[in-house]
Amino acid sequence: MATPVRVGVIGAGRIGQVHAEHLAFRIPEADVRMVADINKAAAEACAERFHIPAATDNVQDILSNPDIEAVIICSSTDTHAQFIQEAAAADKHIFCEKPIDHDLGKIDRALAAVEKAGVKLQIGFNRRFDPNFAEVRRMIEAGKIGQPHILRITSRDPEPPPIEYVRVSGGIFLDMTIHDFDMARYLMGSEVTEIFVAGGVLVDPAIGEAGDIDTAVITLRFENNAIGTIDNSRKAVYGYDQRVEVFGSGGGVVVGNNRPHNAVYSDAEGVHAAKPLYFFMQRYTESFINEMRAFIAAVQNDMPTPVTGMDGRIPVVMGLAAWQSYRENRPVKLSEVE
Amino acid sequence: MATPVRVGVIGAGRIGQVHAEHLAFRIPEADVRMVADINKAAAEACAERFHIPAATDNVQDILSNPDIEAVIICSSTDTHAQFIQEAAAADKHIFCEKPIDHDLGKIDRALAAVEKAGVKLQIGFNRRFDPNFAEVRRMIEAGKIGQPHILRITSRDPEPPPIEYVRVSGGIFLDMTIHDFDMARYLMGSEVTEIFVAGGVLVDPAIGEAGDIDTAVITLRFENNAIGTIDNSRKAVYGYDQRVEVFGSGGGVVVGNNRPHNAVYSDAEGVHAAKPLYFFMQRYTESFINEMRAFIAAVQNDMPTPVTGMDGRIPVVMGLAAWQSYRENRPVKLSEVE
Amino acid sequence: MATPVRVGVIGAGRIGQVHAEHLAFRIPEADVRMVADINKAAAEACAERFHIPAATDNVQDILSNPDIEAVIICSSTDTHAQFIQEAAAADKHIFCEKPIDHDLGKIDRALAAVEKAGVKLQIGFNRRFDPNFAEVRRMIEAGKIGQPHILRITSRDPEPPPIEYVRVSGGIFLDMTIHDFDMARYLMGSEVTEIFVAGGVLVDPAIGEAGDIDTAVITLRFENNAIGTIDNSRKAVYGYDQRVEVFGSGGGVVVGNNRPHNAVYSDAEGVHAAKPLYFFMQRYTESFINEMRAFIAAVQNDMPTPVTGMDGRIPVVMGLAAWQSYRENRPVKLSEVE
Amino acid sequence: MATPVRVGVIGAGRIGQVHAEHLAFRIPEADVRMVADINKAAAEACAERFHIPAATDNVQDILSNPDIEAVIICSSTDTHAQFIQEAAAADKHIFCEKPIDHDLGKIDRALAAVEKAGVKLQIGFNRRFDPNFAEVRRMIEAGKIGQPHILRITSRDPEPPPIEYVRVSGGIFLDMTIHDFDMARYLMGSEVTEIFVAGGVLVDPAIGEAGDIDTAVITLRFENNAIGTIDNSRKAVYGYDQRVEVFGSGGGVVVGNNRPHNAVYSDAEGVHAAKPLYFFMQRYTESFINEMRAFIAAVQNDMPTPVTGMDGRIPVVMGLAAWQSYRENRPVKLSEVE
Repeated sequence: MATPVRVGVIGAGRIGQVHAEHLAFRIPEADVRMVADINKAAAEACAERFHIPAATDNVQDILSNPDIEAVIICSSTDTHAQFIQEAAAADKHIFCEKPIDHDLGKIDRALAAVEKAGVKLQIGFNRRFDPNFAEVRRMIEAGKIGQPHILRITSRDPEPPPIEYVRVSGGIFLDMTIHDFDMARYLMGSEVTEIFVAGGVLVDPAIGEAGDIDTAVITLRFENNAIGTIDNSRKAVYGYDQRVEVFGSGGGVVVGNNRPHNAVYSDAEGVHAAKPLYFFMQRYTESFINEMRAFIAAVQNDMPTPVTGMDGRIPVVMGLAAWQSYRENRPVKLSEVE
Repeated sequence: MATPVRVGVIGAGRIGQVHAEHLAFRIPEADVRMVADINKAAAEACAERFHIPAATDNVQDILSNPDIEAVIICSSTDTHAQFIQEAAAADKHIFCEKPIDHDLGKIDRALAAVEKAGVKLQIGFNRRFDPNFAEVRRMIEAGKIGQPHILRITSRDPEPPPIEYVRVSGGIFLDMTIHDFDMARYLMGSEVTEIFVAGGVLVDPAIGEAGDIDTAVITLRFENNAIGTIDNSRKAVYGYDQRVEVFGSGGGVVVGNNRPHNAVYSDAEGVHAAKPLYFFMQRYTESFINEMRAFIAAVQNDMPTPVTGMDGRIPVVMGLAAWQSYRENRPVKLSEVE
Repeated sequence: MATPVRVGVIGAGRIGQVHAEHLAFRIPEADVRMVADINKAAAEACAERFHIPAATDNVQDILSNPDIEAVIICSSTDTHAQFIQEAAAADKHIFCEKPIDHDLGKIDRALAAVEKAGVKLQIGFNRRFDPNFAEVRRMIEAGKIGQPHILRITSRDPEPPPIEYVRVSGGIFLDMTIHDFDMARYLMGSEVTEIFVAGGVLVDPAIGEAGDIDTAVITLRFENNAIGTIDNSRKAVYGYDQRVEVFGSGGGVVVGNNRPHNAVYSDAEGVHAAKPLYFFMQRYTESFINEMRAFIAAVQNDMPTPVTGMDGRIPVVMGLAAWQSYRENRPVKLSEVE
Repeated sequence: MATPVRVGVIGAGRIGQVHAEHLAFRIPEADVRMVADINKAAAEACAERFHIPAATDNVQDILSNPDIEAVIICSSTDTHAQFIQEAAAADKHIFCEKPIDHDLGKIDRALAAVEKAGVKLQIGFNRRFDPNFAEVRRMIEAGKIGQPHILRITSRDPEPPPIEYVRVSGGIFLDMTIHDFDMARYLMGSEVTEIFVAGGVLVDPAIGEAGDIDTAVITLRFENNAIGTIDNSRKAVYGYDQRVEVFGSGGGVVVGNNRPHNAVYSDAEGVHAAKPLYFFMQRYTESFINEMRAFIAAVQNDMPTPVTGMDGRIPVVMGLAAWQSYRENRPVKLSEVE
């Protein structure tokens, strides 16, 4: 077995812990050397839990550590672009959670730094690594759908995030829909050229007061002439609703929700099955492992990463176009946003 | 049992035969007295087949027959408005196939004639009477969905109509989507205020040359703030695809396709089920019977019909708005079309 | 169109009315001339309802009527064998509800009379004509299952029959399982040689007091070495449960229940679908029409009927073997019963 | 966190590696100290792969190691009873793969040794820990099924084991059905009193020549009067088929197969889904982790194990009764086998 890739994890919050655990226990090809968090206790707890030999509250301890080859950036969004630049300057390969930033200028500077340093960069669009969606992509690539005509994505959360998060999240399109924008590009293998949004505040007026919306239906036009639609809600009472459909000249494929068990119960009232898995931590566990495995493999084998910096940038452009469309109630071309 | 309603059928084409058969054999409360078709042989064949005592090539034979209480208008679309006016003038109750017309002025004159005569009018939006969709409506009315937020309709035909039909059909929105527009209003119990269309010619260039499109994703805004999306294709290789979903604050409901049988076969290649029922004649049989039964019951019991003249008019307005949106690539308010 | 087959219906109870309606309204190739019932009012009500020109309380009026070509025997089971003999003697083709009788001697005399008269006889095993089960049979015949190895039938009623019926029905195996025995032979295309029963009274002690059981698991051995299992219950709280599975060297096929609609509702409690159609009158409507159509076609075209007298006799043998197995708690060969 | 349980793994074959990996990487509460295999290279490879500090070809190295609290017996079946006795004598807690042995005398001696030593023993009936089946058990315990009446288990392998294994496996009932026997007891919460088998060699004559059968339908009678049926095949061309159904006075519950993804593809031929997960290593991964977690927790918290020695013994009695029933073609009481 090749030498494991030596990794530092930046950020020991929820998603940082997920990646740390997977790197530590599920991916023998990785060796987590250090975890950093501005909250030192959080870094230490994470280190202890996942048998990581060092914890710090100073990111520089990771960036300046010559032993570390790659960093996993899981800190808050506003730090992503800066840490990417610093990590690139320190010649570390980089996995960074989405989004890179909400500001295209910052993104471009970060990507330029990566380009200049010649390090690898992978953005955390984990859903591409979900077995269901990956199968859809495989079918499309295998020609089973023929020419794609229509894409449908349903993406609904079980409950809205806290209002304080809503205020800084960049709003639904940059926080939540951004995953669906990536999924759209990934599945169709074609770029979106124009976006139209119909949205509103139907779930909770407080979301509107925070400057966001909570419900949206988004129309996408693709370069290959296909048409897509995404529907989002911040609150589905039955849990996380993550479905995708691609329809084309040769057939169609539909992906439904995953459930905790498949027991189907019949009684005098009807036939009953389990709700979908509750939220992304349950639903996308396997994809989180797979994306990390793919990043480690790319570093280890000096291969391109499967989700590039441009893959991280374009959904932000789409999110900005979506906001403009929502505000102006008209279709907006992505080229208008640049 | 009350005296059966004496009925004349106008038009012995495909849908005329369907209604004639149901009235003759499935609905004891109806008594078909005469069938008319400009092709007399067609009228006679229909009469013989369904034990109808009289056939004619002259609609006036029906309209002037004092014995006939109600007419079923199944002739070509361009004759609907005129026959409605004549039937109203002759004091007949009227069932008319959709659409009433493509011209709002003609529709308004026809509806005015109905109003003046005080006869009943029911428009042939049969899908409302499908057990699946009716169940969705019942759930919404029962409050199981809570406040509706998102409506999704998928409506795809197994193959495009003949090009000669495409040329006179009024185009996809007035011919095909019109059913989905009606379904949207019926399910949501709220009017659409604005429509946005993204469409194209992806199935067959000949459809584009005939002035129509064959693929569309349509966004609807409702008065109650809900948002809807319809996707249409003229050709699904796997057959007639007729699905609906309503999502709201209290839950969601999804309706899938009906199949000729439910046998599921597993072999070394996978797990295989039957395609959906091929087209509307197979898929909506039950709804055709139910709508006719509802019309006959409305006449017999002097009750309002369940699909009114306004229910026939509004989807035409929606179709015209959809065309305008498509041409101008912008959301169009229904109020702009009037 | 060929001249319709002139039919007399014997018995205007529940199933008699079903067949009368189908022959009158759904099968143009049939012409119901007369209906007989010992309860004359029932015969007359049936005649009026389905536009049958004559009603009688005397079966002889049908049997002696030279205008009538075929009879549909829907009277009580104890009259079947006698009416078959009389109808054969009167040179009428015969459709007879199952079972022919519970006594093999009587069955044999009836079949001998049919044989001698050279008339057609079809027994009312309607489930063969259900689209789901017919598809399973087609798959087996087409070789998609390969060599059949295992057959599974689940057959559960929504509620037990009245105790007075239980007392005269011949018991669960001759009343209820008899349909499953026929299904087993029909699907497998092979005869059963041995039967083992494990059964009991789990639903209602009154059934046991009436000399019957209400729950059974039955093992079948087939001549082709396949093995089958049937499970029966007189009471499934969720409704009529009618499933079948055939497994073989080339694959497997499973048939599930039919439902009144396919709407699937998700709420905070789970995902909910409709119960199966309530009972045989709802579930097997289409099969009742199809079996009658097949009988009429056999008469009209002078073809063999699809369910012969022997097809009526063998499931009775199986039912008797099942009772013997239950009483003696051992596998019983069909050859022991003769 | 409490001190991890120090574990030795005996046997580094297929299932030994599975348990070693889970203990090493998935269960922080366990600390694997040593792995033994008569093939030393296998032990060493396993140790290296899962970061286990010691490997040996001598089981005594584990048994005599005072540092080790618990052993995981994954060696060949013929060694189980002996190793249980030795481990008990060495005061180790014991997890042992099923079956304990095919000989009841040996089993009893092993259980007596466990009893005398007062150590914990858990038998490897992993399927109890599958989320689907566990949910069925929960439903039954919660009273949702009411009084259980009928149990159905379908258990089919994707392909037969090698003939050399068939010769020593104890045959289908002790090797394969034994899992289903355990499932039957576990779900129903009631003991089986009598077994009837109909079986044969339908898959491969070589299996018959090796003294085994490959297809069986097994009837179970329970103390609580419920009736069960299991169907087994050594070869389902579509993969591992693992389904369960429990039906009772209050309702029914059905568990189907798990699939690698839920993408459903429709084309001109039909609607297609993925085959079930291929075999037990794929299908039951989660249950293997859960059973090991349960064992470690029982040791750590000094609680009873969830699958006891008697739970290991009774399915062997059932397997022996099944063989006797097959040979004598009659129902056999479990009390006859003792």
